[in-house]
Amino acid sequence: MPPTAKSTTGNYFEDFRVGMVIRHATPRTVTLGDASVYQACYGNRFAVQSSDAMACSIGYPRAPLDDMLVFHVVFGKTVPDLSLNAIANLGYADVRFLEPVYPGDTLSATTDIIGLRENSNKESGVVYVRSTGHNQRGEAVLTFARWVMVRKRDQAAIVAEAVVPALPSHVAAAAICKAVPPIDIRAYDRTLAGSSFVWGDYQVGERIDHIDGMTIEEAEHQLATRLYQNTAKVHFNQHTEGQGRFKRRLVYGGVVISLARALSFNGLANAFHVAAINAGRHAAPAFAGDTVYAWSEVLEREALPGRSDIGALRLRTVATKNVNCSSFPSPSEPASPTEGVILDLDYWVAMPR
Amino acid sequence: MPPTAKSTTGNYFEDFRVGMVIRHATPRTVTLGDASVYQACYGNRFAVQSSDAMACSIGYPRAPLDDMLVFHVVFGKTVPDLSLNAIANLGYADVRFLEPVYPGDTLSATTDIIGLRENSNKESGVVYVRSTGHNQRGEAVLTFARWVMVRKRDQAAIVAEAVVPALPSHVAAAAICKAVPPIDIRAYDRTLAGSSFVWGDYQVGERIDHIDGMTIEEAEHQLATRLYQNTAKVHFNQHTEGQGRFKRRLVYGGVVISLARALSFNGLANAFHVAAINAGRHAAPAFAGDTVYAWSEVLEREALPGRSDIGALRLRTVATKNVNCSSFPSPSEPASPTEGVILDLDYWVAMPR
Amino acid sequence: MPPTAKSTTGNYFEDFRVGMVIRHATPRTVTLGDASVYQACYGNRFAVQSSDAMACSIGYPRAPLDDMLVFHVVFGKTVPDLSLNAIANLGYADVRFLEPVYPGDTLSATTDIIGLRENSNKESGVVYVRSTGHNQRGEAVLTFARWVMVRKRDQAAIVAEAVVPALPSHVAAAAICKAVPPIDIRAYDRTLAGSSFVWGDYQVGERIDHIDGMTIEEAEHQLATRLYQNTAKVHFNQHTEGQGRFKRRLVYGGVVISLARALSFNGLANAFHVAAINAGRHAAPAFAGDTVYAWSEVLEREALPGRSDIGALRLRTVATKNVNCSSFPSPSEPASPTEGVILDLDYWVAMPR
Repeated sequence: MPPTAKSTTGNYFEDFRVGMVIRHATPRTVTLGDASVYQACYGNRFAVQSSDAMACSIGYPRAPLDDMLVFHVVFGKTVPDLSLNAIANLGYADVRFLEPVYPGDTLSATTDIIGLRENSNKESGVVYVRSTGHNQRGEAVLTFARWVMVRKRDQAAIVAEAVVPALPSHVAAAAICKAVPPIDIRAYDRTLAGSSFVWGDYQVGERIDHIDGMTIEEAEHQLATRLYQNTAKVHFNQHTEGQGRFKRRLVYGGVVISLARALSFNGLANAFHVAAINAGRHAAPAFAGDTVYAWSEVLEREALPGRSDIGALRLRTVATKNVNCSSFPSPSEPASPTEGVILDLDYWVAMPR
Repeated sequence: MPPTAKSTTGNYFEDFRVGMVIRHATPRTVTLGDASVYQACYGNRFAVQSSDAMACSIGYPRAPLDDMLVFHVVFGKTVPDLSLNAIANLGYADVRFLEPVYPGDTLSATTDIIGLRENSNKESGVVYVRSTGHNQRGEAVLTFARWVMVRKRDQAAIVAEAVVPALPSHVAAAAICKAVPPIDIRAYDRTLAGSSFVWGDYQVGERIDHIDGMTIEEAEHQLATRLYQNTAKVHFNQHTEGQGRFKRRLVYGGVVISLARALSFNGLANAFHVAAINAGRHAAPAFAGDTVYAWSEVLEREALPGRSDIGALRLRTVATKNVNCSSFPSPSEPASPTEGVILDLDYWVAMPR
Repeated sequence: MPPTAKSTTGNYFEDFRVGMVIRHATPRTVTLGDASVYQACYGNRFAVQSSDAMACSIGYPRAPLDDMLVFHVVFGKTVPDLSLNAIANLGYADVRFLEPVYPGDTLSATTDIIGLRENSNKESGVVYVRSTGHNQRGEAVLTFARWVMVRKRDQAAIVAEAVVPALPSHVAAAAICKAVPPIDIRAYDRTLAGSSFVWGDYQVGERIDHIDGMTIEEAEHQLATRLYQNTAKVHFNQHTEGQGRFKRRLVYGGVVISLARALSFNGLANAFHVAAINAGRHAAPAFAGDTVYAWSEVLEREALPGRSDIGALRLRTVATKNVNCSSFPSPSEPASPTEGVILDLDYWVAMPR
């Protein structure tokens, strides 16, 4: 038997089939400790996730875990099976948070392969997946689609005809916020939450500079990414990455998303829940030493069927590196790293009405 | 509306009025996870905070959280409202720990503006505040005064006549240690605690070199400061600070205090509770790469009214950078960074009798 | 009294006597928070420690803490008394994990001095110890022997005749796995655990390249080592170490062991418990910036008396720095740092049958 028969270098493009279902290792009990490490990595200040007392006062049984922590933990499980041989994460769609996750819940993940399309160069292809995170009661807590460009092991391998799934351009407002219990809006203390501005105060087209900047250290992004059990080597191995295209480790894109979300508190303090992500694009890589800034635009403001407690804002949040956002920079097409834009995220948040 | 109308750059000197009361965001449930991150950042070894078994054996219901962690969390809440535009934190006074804080407690903070004095250059002024941290039952757990030099937004803004509050030079011994339950002193295991020396063994005037040194990394002080939800940009933004006076991020002064406290275990292992801080001065800034040392002098030794279990020591702890404390260096007046002194702290600790 | 009479620079060779028993400070309640910081430092993926649901499904009352976290916490307690003046940690033997440790347990440690042998240069000697960690119920959870070369304070000090204890070359398979409750092997989900290969699938002599590499940052090894309350100054003080032999801080050897263990998941995913360590040698130091890789060889495969649920594999795991393990490099004798081998560990793991 070959020496490495029991270890793995991950799946290649030709290993996937449309209709395959992958149950991922490793189940993970997410805890108060994870919340603290997450807090230390990003400096979040959203009150509902920060305070049991605040969460209980409005109708949660206790403070739920940060939505993006849940996303990263579920996403991390999929990496060893899906994207160890990825060339690029091309996109996300239809990301929906379905149930609150509390400290002590155990998360596991499964993935359906929903599409495959070989690239014309026969060296790689795009794998389309639908991944779902479940809690210990088998309830789906998060579902999302993503598509990834994955290397082929063998350029000559014959692959099936292309299947490209239809994915929604954005999540419908009617489908979101199922993870938010009925909120006692009279008990919601805006001063403690950090802002007097609620759902009705935001206007479509309004732009918000989140002002603050945060510099990423090598140890910080590694600690965060390991917390999620994400094993993508580009984030951890300077010995190989130092010889690669960028000469250094890449910061996991999820770290940039979490930083942008934390920075967005300054201007969106009452956006206590990320309800769905419509689309996300990492316009350029981030590295240790980069300082991340962010700004947001209100794309839509939607009431939610049957709910008078909360409403939804569809936001576009753009993160930059090493340039502040006072001029609201947008990514060019194709993205040019020189302008400093690293993330363009389209998502829904819940806010008290 | 201007683009940044929903985000904030913080209050300026002319925004404050004597008598104003500010309720700060964000309430924070402090947890076992926070204790672990704090442990990883500083390496504390005080037994009462480290061990539920030790704490229970002497009369606590469980291990209380580290006093300085509580201080930093409460202090952190005040930063977005008080000191985003601070030029310097000038001092602390009358810092008193009033109730033990346990994992699971939720902390919030309020501040009274108790004094204001414009500087003669009209560009800034000193804001005097009294901040108080409360738990979820509304009990005050910590109160402290501080004064901060804050920029004016508009040099021409007219401000009220100066009010400078009277603050005590130090906290009276009779007022401290309310946060310590009656201690079963026969159960207090000095060997487990790390030293045979208790209250009666320390002499006024005695000096203790804490010997050990600890080098600060950029990621470490950022992780700690974000854990406290402290948003002061000088600690986090290399993009702007790199163009500033020091060309680099400043380490939050509270990190130096916590390091000095952790180092002081070697010589003060039974000083299990910081009861009050009389005065604190950051004599010079600390930066990543600096190695922190500390020494202490016993200023007073006081019995506590009605208590035969514990006594109080008033200590002066001096921290240095990149010079060890075998010669007990003191800060000069005015402080000269070249001598290496970065902190001069006057405080009370509780120790078994 | 001399200024430093209350602080300590640790014991020197002549301070030890065979038969001495040392009760170490500081007792430590290990928590969910510690598990999260440990997770963030190493990226472990073993399912039993990661998931309460997985652990409960097979017979644990909840997820136990990682065995090596327990080892490091117990080891850390011994450092201030045993090895502050160590020149080198020479070896470990007969390391046995005796009881599972759960979040909330409080660990303390005692050490018996079991041997002493002065070096011929009279400047130092070897101290042989047996250290044992206990939980809050007084149960031994871990026991291990180690021997350390310790400086003499005074070269002229007279010391007793040499006593060198007999230590086993390895732990007998019959003595291990007492810390593993009866496992419901039908409930053990190999897919969730990350591999279909169980005890019977491994062959003596088989070699496994664990493939992945992990770069160590200064902040990461300091955070981990402080989490264990390990105070050895070589890991923390750049001000002194910068003037020393290596010009920089040494990474605690336990960090390398934990990284190698975490990397070994890729190839040994079902090796859910470290049952015993037979021998360990740090062949060369590791520093921040080094990238760690590992490979393993199966030395023995043993059934366990009276157990049909699990079996034991005796493994040799070799860790390298800045060279991958595709060629299975071994340490030379004497160790030469140029070949990149930093750790050679001989240990037993438990695996489902």
